[in-house]
Amino acid sequence: MNTSVGLVTTEYVTFDTELRLESGRVLGPITLAYETYGQLNAERSNAILVCHAWTGDAHAAGRHHPDDRKPGWWDGMIGPGKVIDTDRYFVICSNTIGSCKGSTGPTSINPRTEKPYRLSFPVLMVRDMVRAQQLLLDHLGIDTLVTVIGGSMGAMQAVEWGIHYSERVRSIIPIAGTARTSPMSIALNSVARQAIFNDPLWKKGNYRTEHPPTDGLALARAIGHIAFLSDTSMHLKFGRRYSARDGLFDFFGQFEVERYLEYNGHNFPQHFDTNSFLYLAKALDLYDTAWNFESLQEAFSYLQCPSLWFAFTSDWLYPPYQTEEAVEVLRSLGKHVEYHLIDSDYGHDSFLVEPEKFTHLISHFIDRQA
Amino acid sequence: MNTSVGLVTTEYVTFDTELRLESGRVLGPITLAYETYGQLNAERSNAILVCHAWTGDAHAAGRHHPDDRKPGWWDGMIGPGKVIDTDRYFVICSNTIGSCKGSTGPTSINPRTEKPYRLSFPVLMVRDMVRAQQLLLDHLGIDTLVTVIGGSMGAMQAVEWGIHYSERVRSIIPIAGTARTSPMSIALNSVARQAIFNDPLWKKGNYRTEHPPTDGLALARAIGHIAFLSDTSMHLKFGRRYSARDGLFDFFGQFEVERYLEYNGHNFPQHFDTNSFLYLAKALDLYDTAWNFESLQEAFSYLQCPSLWFAFTSDWLYPPYQTEEAVEVLRSLGKHVEYHLIDSDYGHDSFLVEPEKFTHLISHFIDRQA
Repeated sequence: MNTSVGLVTTEYVTFDTELRLESGRVLGPITLAYETYGQLNAERSNAILVCHAWTGDAHAAGRHHPDDRKPGWWDGMIGPGKVIDTDRYFVICSNTIGSCKGSTGPTSINPRTEKPYRLSFPVLMVRDMVRAQQLLLDHLGIDTLVTVIGGSMGAMQAVEWGIHYSERVRSIIPIAGTARTSPMSIALNSVARQAIFNDPLWKKGNYRTEHPPTDGLALARAIGHIAFLSDTSMHLKFGRRYSARDGLFDFFGQFEVERYLEYNGHNFPQHFDTNSFLYLAKALDLYDTAWNFESLQEAFSYLQCPSLWFAFTSDWLYPPYQTEEAVEVLRSLGKHVEYHLIDSDYGHDSFLVEPEKFTHLISHFIDRQA
Repeated sequence: MNTSVGLVTTEYVTFDTELRLESGRVLGPITLAYETYGQLNAERSNAILVCHAWTGDAHAAGRHHPDDRKPGWWDGMIGPGKVIDTDRYFVICSNTIGSCKGSTGPTSINPRTEKPYRLSFPVLMVRDMVRAQQLLLDHLGIDTLVTVIGGSMGAMQAVEWGIHYSERVRSIIPIAGTARTSPMSIALNSVARQAIFNDPLWKKGNYRTEHPPTDGLALARAIGHIAFLSDTSMHLKFGRRYSARDGLFDFFGQFEVERYLEYNGHNFPQHFDTNSFLYLAKALDLYDTAWNFESLQEAFSYLQCPSLWFAFTSDWLYPPYQTEEAVEVLRSLGKHVEYHLIDSDYGHDSFLVEPEKFTHLISHFIDRQA
């Protein structure tokens, strides 16, 4: 049985429009990078929007080239016969604005200056990302979505869709999200930011593309990485094993967990732009469902569709109580809400590491909205 | 009622001896900075050793000058009529080797080269710190201690005392400790280290005293600081409040929690040496009660005295289960062990922030050993 969407291509669409952002600033023209899988039906009623996390991109499933070592980042979820079944649904994944993976972000050319935006790029909120995705839906001629689904920053986008464009979504599925980013999470992003600011190569965002602040970004990524893991997953994966090539009493000797963080951190700057990382971190920190509302209650009162929420026991970045806060508000408002706390050891990353623990709960939910 | 030990002075003693360290290297001569409070009785049997944490010092109680704004770091615990009652006990607090607060450490002059050790200083284990403290006990003419008490790295020292010098201690009181540092804790120290290594002023430890790697050390401290707090304490203290002087959409705008971490981080390098910070972090990471034993069981089999352990519900740096691991082993060995899990919101710092929640449990325990 073929369960892959096969070869796919990232597409790009540019909107010659100016988007009014939450900050009051305008951004435009706007390019969005996106991929689609499956066929849009005649009624144009079978579309699902998949939203990516912080450093994700539009490439959620399939391969760009036959010899790609890895498929898209959620290939296990998306394909013929899979949880998000491309035999039945038309699946869209769009890179968010602010990112560096094809959509307009701080690496893009500012048409007013003909130079890259860098720090002249406006500070974004997740709400702005969703506003831009609306343009894509219009472009594709899609009125309503079967569901909007995503983990982490993707969950935030799903919630914003449900609240602000309730006429266009028939359900939302926020996974490992939060109703508002906690001070602990902000603190972790804060030290990650500082790691970049401390790098002399950063030059207040004016680094040369060929000389990015690699050390700072690698360290920032390592800090983030810790927050995505858990005490238990680190015990399982590394324990207290010491690197075989170092002496225990070498000043620069490393435990395995250190080597892993350093290795992954140093790979990251090859794939991601530093300013984009900072802008998206800021959007995460600013995330508050109740922003520009009186309260969470008021914000969620605008959600009309059923919602399916997942949290993970070992997630200490967006701990279960934060999802439960949102779910409780929705219940108190009499909304159709379904919530599952998934027992998993892999921290915030659980939604990527152990999909088999919760995805069976998604299929039925989606089919009911189709 | 006067409950202060009053004016005190840090004393220094130098031992013209070479200490064989766990690494196999030797260190000497060795200077120890220490303070004492109260009077040693005629039998020399009423001494208590107080052990400090990572960045602590010998100044645990009283004031050095009448106009000192703050007393010693555990002044709430130590004094006439207090939990550690200087009317009854002779209290000793010694700065550990490896530190920069008067005891021999990387800032000390290496007598072989007549230059500061810097990175030629040997990597230490907590066991080495305790070994050096023994010299001080000999110097003071004290055979046995009523108890050894400390939090965090101080707890580790208490445990090492109990296991390795069981003939000299009548009890130990480890607070907010661990039987062995977890990979999560190592990971956090690892990114703190990297923050320093990334600072161009660090120069592989050869920074000029007047130009220390302030940015790197400040960031390292901020990372540590996050680990000492808790999700709940950050909610209580900062919530999502945004700095009043910044705009929400300023790229460099800060939440209150960020400003706090930055402020505290930048104060720190005025008081602490970078290389010392790194050597002590390394000692924390290497800490394993079972080091050079077959198992935790074997290690704890050498503990002969009663022990009193405290852990704090919101401590995610050395979570309660880690103290409980040690306590379970001691119970399985039939040792006299008392354990209290204290409900506190202040994370690892709880032992300093809310002493009133547990110190009443200490007085009785100490008096029984006196």
